[in-house]
Amino acid sequence: MAGTILSGMRPTGRLHLGNYFGALENWVRLQDQYNCYFFVADWHALTTGYDSTEVIIPNTYEMVADFLAAGLDPEKCAIFRQSDVKEHAELHLLMSMITPLSWLERCPTYKDMIQQLSNKDINSYGFLGYPALMSCDILMYKADAVPVGEDQLPHLEFTREMVRRFNHLYGPVFPEPKALMTEAKVLPGTDGRKMSKSYNNTIALADDPDTVRTKVMSMITDASRIKKTDPGHPDICSVYAYHKVFNPEQVPEITEQCKGGCIGCVQCKKALAAKISEYLTPIYERRQAIVADKGYIDDVLEAGRIKAAARAAATMDDVRSAMHFK
Amino acid sequence: MAGTILSGMRPTGRLHLGNYFGALENWVRLQDQYNCYFFVADWHALTTGYDSTEVIIPNTYEMVADFLAAGLDPEKCAIFRQSDVKEHAELHLLMSMITPLSWLERCPTYKDMIQQLSNKDINSYGFLGYPALMSCDILMYKADAVPVGEDQLPHLEFTREMVRRFNHLYGPVFPEPKALMTEAKVLPGTDGRKMSKSYNNTIALADDPDTVRTKVMSMITDASRIKKTDPGHPDICSVYAYHKVFNPEQVPEITEQCKGGCIGCVQCKKALAAKISEYLTPIYERRQAIVADKGYIDDVLEAGRIKAAARAAATMDDVRSAMHFK
Repeated sequence: MAGTILSGMRPTGRLHLGNYFGALENWVRLQDQYNCYFFVADWHALTTGYDSTEVIIPNTYEMVADFLAAGLDPEKCAIFRQSDVKEHAELHLLMSMITPLSWLERCPTYKDMIQQLSNKDINSYGFLGYPALMSCDILMYKADAVPVGEDQLPHLEFTREMVRRFNHLYGPVFPEPKALMTEAKVLPGTDGRKMSKSYNNTIALADDPDTVRTKVMSMITDASRIKKTDPGHPDICSVYAYHKVFNPEQVPEITEQCKGGCIGCVQCKKALAAKISEYLTPIYERRQAIVADKGYIDDVLEAGRIKAAARAAATMDDVRSAMHFK
Repeated sequence: MAGTILSGMRPTGRLHLGNYFGALENWVRLQDQYNCYFFVADWHALTTGYDSTEVIIPNTYEMVADFLAAGLDPEKCAIFRQSDVKEHAELHLLMSMITPLSWLERCPTYKDMIQQLSNKDINSYGFLGYPALMSCDILMYKADAVPVGEDQLPHLEFTREMVRRFNHLYGPVFPEPKALMTEAKVLPGTDGRKMSKSYNNTIALADDPDTVRTKVMSMITDASRIKKTDPGHPDICSVYAYHKVFNPEQVPEITEQCKGGCIGCVQCKKALAAKISEYLTPIYERRQAIVADKGYIDDVLEAGRIKAAARAAATMDDVRSAMHFK
């Protein structure tokens, strides 16, 4: 094993292809190369969703079903819930005492989010502190690396600064985690905008093959192309973006046919639907089996909790010793 | 039992008479009337002392020795360490998500402390959040009342607001704790200023009788009184302030003698020293026995931890249910 990796997702419920290609697909690869801890960030969900906590547990189960259907293997990695490992809260409290307020206030995501969610009262103490909580998630497992996209680099840098500050004050306990840059495949929503539940333009991992087919057939293509013989503009077509992900071998051919007005959008979508189905149907079928197996997800989360808790307990031993709390 | 009471002190080491008459003497009385939880706020100590954590454990033992010497009875109350009950950290994290930042920023003690300690880098996330942590300490035991002085009323009001906010969002889990106003006896330091370790003007509960006597004999009295026959001004005399606490029956007589120039300061101090010794010697002797009994304080803290943890576990069950975390 090349080291330890930590990554998590907030329990948003069923994952869509954007989530899958943005992170989960990569996790499935990483579990064969690293000692991986993947967690459901249910405490983090409170930062913006403190007023609708009733969705957290159902969303957790849906999401973990997706994790498993996509190929995360509980024998290879730890899949657990943040709230099941109470040490995250203890480390967060201890770290809060050495986290300069200015580091949090300066966090580029902080003011962005406050603005984006200006219709919601999220200006809480916990919301301000979420980069510190995120750091503790990483440090708890002494992760050597964290898979991140460009937008999350400031949080990783924050974590690295926390490590330096802690180690300087109390001695060398934590390694500085490195960024494992993820080259995410970006899929637009079925209407061409960013894929998002709030736009109702997603394809979910849990969608049955017929639903997927219907969604693909209704996708927005090049609006300026009226007749099949009109030359198409693949670069502005969502269907084309999907071909690049699901059907890369045929992309040169499709590009030529589209630009030359030799293939109609319906035909092009049918070809895509077949390719997507080939990819997603096995995931869908695994998911059906997982959901039918009552208690399986609980077993997975319990096994993950045990693995994570053992590592967390060892880390907290080191932290408490270094800070003279035992 | 009339209800549950929670109170704590930061582990500052040996307590002096200011600490004793400001809080501990009252705790000893309360343990016979209420279900009491008294704790060493060792996590709170980090808010200002994160860079000198090596003193926390020795200070804890010194302070608990004082608690016991003063008469706290582990059979009657729970005496425990905050850091031994990890639930405090979990509740703090959950509460942080519903604590408006503005409530903390507006806290009257916050800006005061930042100014007072301007020579020290304490502008941390944890320092900002300490009223929320304090609230969690109280709520963890569903305390009905908290013994407070005037200066701590804003913190209690903060806690009551947190209760209303939590109960509104998640259902009625917590009672609103009431203030149990403490009429503290105020003793000046031996030099007439506020009693404080940093002024080196304290009398400690752990001082042996000879030391106490020496300190009393060197106390500052009315500086304008040169000869015994000069009329004294008891109201500006520290020795007089001590007589009011340790020797209230003789106060009218001493007032008359001092004002009339009939009693010298040395004689007055001797009388006081005898009274203080009468009061403090039994405490000192109990303390000697406690400290000699290796392992006794550990046993007390472990028994306290068990009592506190049981109550904390029950509260967290309620909290997690209300917030849909189980």
